[in-house]
Amino acid sequence: MRRKVRISDVAQKAGVSVTTVSQILNNKGARFSQKTIDKVLEIRDEMGYVPDYNARSLIMGSTKTIGVIVPDLSNPFFTSFLKGIGQAAEEEQFIPLILGSEDNQALERTYIEQLVQRSVDGMIIASPLVERDIIDHLLKSNGIPYILIDQNPVAEGDRLYTDDADGARQAVQHLLDLGHQKIALIYSDKPTINVTYRLRGYEEALEKAGIGFDPKLVLTTPMTKEGGYQVAQSLIDSEATAAVTINDEVAIGLYHGLQEKGKSIPEDYSIVGYDDIDLAAYLNPTLTTVAQPVMHLGNLALRRLVARIKDHNLADEKVKLPVKLVVRHSTRRLGQ
Amino acid sequence: MRRKVRISDVAQKAGVSVTTVSQILNNKGARFSQKTIDKVLEIRDEMGYVPDYNARSLIMGSTKTIGVIVPDLSNPFFTSFLKGIGQAAEEEQFIPLILGSEDNQALERTYIEQLVQRSVDGMIIASPLVERDIIDHLLKSNGIPYILIDQNPVAEGDRLYTDDADGARQAVQHLLDLGHQKIALIYSDKPTINVTYRLRGYEEALEKAGIGFDPKLVLTTPMTKEGGYQVAQSLIDSEATAAVTINDEVAIGLYHGLQEKGKSIPEDYSIVGYDDIDLAAYLNPTLTTVAQPVMHLGNLALRRLVARIKDHNLADEKVKLPVKLVVRHSTRRLGQ
Repeated sequence: MRRKVRISDVAQKAGVSVTTVSQILNNKGARFSQKTIDKVLEIRDEMGYVPDYNARSLIMGSTKTIGVIVPDLSNPFFTSFLKGIGQAAEEEQFIPLILGSEDNQALERTYIEQLVQRSVDGMIIASPLVERDIIDHLLKSNGIPYILIDQNPVAEGDRLYTDDADGARQAVQHLLDLGHQKIALIYSDKPTINVTYRLRGYEEALEKAGIGFDPKLVLTTPMTKEGGYQVAQSLIDSEATAAVTINDEVAIGLYHGLQEKGKSIPEDYSIVGYDDIDLAAYLNPTLTTVAQPVMHLGNLALRRLVARIKDHNLADEKVKLPVKLVVRHSTRRLGQ
Repeated sequence: MRRKVRISDVAQKAGVSVTTVSQILNNKGARFSQKTIDKVLEIRDEMGYVPDYNARSLIMGSTKTIGVIVPDLSNPFFTSFLKGIGQAAEEEQFIPLILGSEDNQALERTYIEQLVQRSVDGMIIASPLVERDIIDHLLKSNGIPYILIDQNPVAEGDRLYTDDADGARQAVQHLLDLGHQKIALIYSDKPTINVTYRLRGYEEALEKAGIGFDPKLVLTTPMTKEGGYQVAQSLIDSEATAAVTINDEVAIGLYHGLQEKGKSIPEDYSIVGYDDIDLAAYLNPTLTTVAQPVMHLGNLALRRLVARIKDHNLADEKVKLPVKLVVRHSTRRLGQ
């Protein structure tokens, strides 16, 4: 069997016309007997007849499909975000088609083009690499609604983001309250817009405490476990007694690097992560970190996009979500 | 701007006919001047014109799209699998549309129906929940090629799987070689087919060593970090000096549960995981585990599916991939 079951196959097997089958399957079969209706439905199920969506969507103008682009499927931050999107999509009866671009800009462009070709109703873009050119030429000119998530530098359109500056401020303040003054920031070597706000929050908190900003305490590294592992020696070589990492993945690598070099957390270094991925509560020691409401972010993104699909004239909206520090066992009072 | 850019928009702006634009965009414009060709291509790019795939796919009979269903996007095992699929798909110029079913069987059925409606060229199904009924009625009867990954109990069609029995044998043998005799298996409370082979391998290795199988040492729990955490006390209450966990996620939870109760790894318990997720090398201590070639599995699945899309008459193929033990620091000689 190589071809899809056709409506004519169902009609032939049921011994009725194609028009009859079509009317019954589109709930317009009131004039037929219940016996005929039941028979057609039964044969449809038995044969596995599914109407062709490509044909239908040409007529109906909607595919009930949303494209979602994330840069990295292996980062738990994005998998939680996708979970939030999936839950809301199920309720709204949209199908989220997920594409992971592996931080590959060319692939991202191809994916977005392909999703436009497939007439998605809208897109959620959580990648920092998507350029204004793509937004303007592929999405806006084709009238496809989209939502950008915080990492993206494009200014127009709906935006959802979390309060990155405040997150970093809370992390630094927690360490200041514990008596730390030499606080390192393990920072991205390729900072996205939202990550620069974390740097700003770090600076502001130190300045407010009268300590001032020491660029030697900002250590840059890739935002991965491997990046955190590699930066461990630089932290040891610095004067810092504590560090805020730019995300939890980096904290995991930093843990491993420090422990391998015989350092203890929090005895030798207090560490604060960022994201509160579910693993944070399982690390040894458990990780103090800034919790982002990431599932909620996914939920809101999907709902906002659906609202915009239903009404293209909605005004652009910017929504900033709060973050909060979760204190666990990777931080302690200096000198204790 | 609410509507997609049409070919007639491009034609109007370029001051040529729709036929001219169509021929040029389909590389059949040799009879036009280079100036006209350049102008049409430039205006196409400027306006962001993208041919409608739904219309084209009706004509061409292929969407160059593959549906991929995974049960759990937050398990690193599946994200590596998706990475392997993505790489091969890029080379083969197919688009992998990913759906995470959150272990929800009703949602899975909906997703598969929707993918069939969207005329995907084929499907990769890595969920244990998909039933024979769905395979028979939605995929087979519509002539849609599919690949099942090892967890699935449906017998027909192409299958790719890893040598689960051998993986468990290797894990147990490693612990036997270190002098352990009381070896627990932290087993799934809802075992899928492939996981039952790990139980078999565990039994065989113990029997071969003349130790015999003790059902009291098989501890069941959900296959999650939380499941591993919850089972820690049962391991302590047993006579075991070592444990093989059914996956690395469970090992992460077990680490946390044991450490919270003051137990050390490997001093008090030697632990062997299963999967070799990238986190395994970052845990404290680093985790000895059975490495599955999961990216390779994703790669092979995509390539096999593409081969089958091109030739529906290929005979069913079963491919078993080898696994290998990676020794790190969570295991040590008993009594040392």
